[in-house]
Amino acid sequence: MTRLTLALDAMGGDFGPCVTVPAALQALASSPSLHLLLVGDPAVLIPLLDNVDSSLLSRLDVVPAESVISGDVRLSQAIRNSRGTSMRVALELIKEGRAEACVSAGNTGVLMGLAKLLLKPLEGIERPALVTLLPHQRQGKTVILDLGANVECSSTMLVQFAVMGAVMAEEVLGLTNPRVALLNIGEEESKGLNNIREAAAQLRMTPSINYIGYLEGNELLTGKTDVMVCDGFVGNVALKTLEGVVRMFLSLLKFSSGSEHRQKPSWWLKFLGRWLQKRLAKRFKHLNPDHYNGACLLGLRGTVIKSHGAANQNAFAVAIEQAMQTVQRQLPERIAARLEAVLPKSD
Amino acid sequence: MTRLTLALDAMGGDFGPCVTVPAALQALASSPSLHLLLVGDPAVLIPLLDNVDSSLLSRLDVVPAESVISGDVRLSQAIRNSRGTSMRVALELIKEGRAEACVSAGNTGVLMGLAKLLLKPLEGIERPALVTLLPHQRQGKTVILDLGANVECSSTMLVQFAVMGAVMAEEVLGLTNPRVALLNIGEEESKGLNNIREAAAQLRMTPSINYIGYLEGNELLTGKTDVMVCDGFVGNVALKTLEGVVRMFLSLLKFSSGSEHRQKPSWWLKFLGRWLQKRLAKRFKHLNPDHYNGACLLGLRGTVIKSHGAANQNAFAVAIEQAMQTVQRQLPERIAARLEAVLPKSD
Repeated sequence: MTRLTLALDAMGGDFGPCVTVPAALQALASSPSLHLLLVGDPAVLIPLLDNVDSSLLSRLDVVPAESVISGDVRLSQAIRNSRGTSMRVALELIKEGRAEACVSAGNTGVLMGLAKLLLKPLEGIERPALVTLLPHQRQGKTVILDLGANVECSSTMLVQFAVMGAVMAEEVLGLTNPRVALLNIGEEESKGLNNIREAAAQLRMTPSINYIGYLEGNELLTGKTDVMVCDGFVGNVALKTLEGVVRMFLSLLKFSSGSEHRQKPSWWLKFLGRWLQKRLAKRFKHLNPDHYNGACLLGLRGTVIKSHGAANQNAFAVAIEQAMQTVQRQLPERIAARLEAVLPKSD
Repeated sequence: MTRLTLALDAMGGDFGPCVTVPAALQALASSPSLHLLLVGDPAVLIPLLDNVDSSLLSRLDVVPAESVISGDVRLSQAIRNSRGTSMRVALELIKEGRAEACVSAGNTGVLMGLAKLLLKPLEGIERPALVTLLPHQRQGKTVILDLGANVECSSTMLVQFAVMGAVMAEEVLGLTNPRVALLNIGEEESKGLNNIREAAAQLRMTPSINYIGYLEGNELLTGKTDVMVCDGFVGNVALKTLEGVVRMFLSLLKFSSGSEHRQKPSWWLKFLGRWLQKRLAKRFKHLNPDHYNGACLLGLRGTVIKSHGAANQNAFAVAIEQAMQTVQRQLPERIAARLEAVLPKSD
């Protein structure tokens, strides 16, 4: 296997190095071809690498970055003051060719702004979009975008997202002629906002896109479409709503098993209860947000993966894994190659 | 108990009289003080009332309406051509004082438009909002609005929704000083769309509202707020996403129990599996969308309940029950009385 180098924004996210460093070591242990550049404050990072197996350490370098992007700051201000932050240094490593992709759990808006500034969008793309693969009921996955990179979207942007999503469904999910839908509040043509109706009209005129119409929020997990397109505000709310409900169900399952204990059932009842609960948890496991953590910033000349800010170690390791796969599949290159053929000419 | 008369748009919704008539009979059977006016085509409705107990029929009248609002039609056109439709006749029955509220499973936009035209908004309210009570994890309920009556909202509209939601939380949930949040894609002040940030600024200046800030989609069911405010597009997508996930979980639970059968377990394993599944289903029951069907059009001089278009008999009966409760609690009157004191002066 050829060597693959990723840069990690080790300081970003709600938990910073407490999560990113163990996740990095976990990823190195399971992927022998992986090299990682841990970007952050050496005084914080190096002590966390004490007692780590030398076979892992040999594939890990600490790249110093003196500061961190703060979560609660205006976008323009954060970008202006970004020099020397772990997020920016991680992105610069891609630009300099030292890393093939980067992973950050930091502020989404700043990551998007900096990535656009440093790596530049692909030809024909106004603004990159945040995309993820959502597991659906029919055992497959749905490409969903934008998840929060662009809070307001023109119809042209929605059409570009549709094209990028379709290419991703072809390249990553291996689908031929993937179905593309727009997220809306009804299936009738007259429903929704102007930009959505205009995007629908443009998509109907784009023969290379298999546009199937509007779908509503309750169709996100049914597998009725391969690509679901929406603006970043709506996509973010929908994804987080979905995550909230799934987490609540998973916690109710646990609590439900806990309540057996309070009733002091006989050992065999307890045993069977646990057995059944395990089976259910296994069935729901693929829906656990931790198992599909990591959204890709699609439409850039480089691969940038945004991890959930509150990701735990396993979830951050999943985001690293996603970065590896995106690089191995050469997604940006393939999208770039397909865009010219597929994108409707805007002039 | 005093007599209570409701008008039902018997022809609206995906299934029309097949659902509305049995639901009406179910509601009459469980509420002895209820009288219903079934609005629709007598040639369709009367045969469905054959063999119905005369004690129920004595509290039910059929009010003729020759046509139905079509789902797939432009809003302005639908409203122009609404004369004589079951939805409009049902609303007119409120205006004429023959019914105290109406329930419809028909097109949301048309219902909103016609209700505003015929019943008029309360003093100080620009546009009514669609509101529902969502059960949350802490055994209480959250008032959420708007759910689709207004796809685009100004900051002033969002503030008015916040006020109406707070009054509803006080009057219906019996809360003192209910917490009010705005749905956004981050909790920091700088996040989200302009209208949301402006509404936040206005709410912070409104001492009679206990505004607690932004909350994200994953907080919809956690009970962190008593009132969640958003525009109708986002609210509709969030609610439908939530419903989609809950339905999927409920179906997975069923399927999971079904799969036990395929393995032909012994009778006691089968018995225990079913027992545990029943317990889980009971625990999740309050989240089943059928059990909280019926969104109220808040801000009108009258009570209008919108049922889910795809509601089944039980769900439509829940919407009728909600209409009864809203009338009994005199919600529009109480909101009107409170609005003047609470609403920030716009001039």
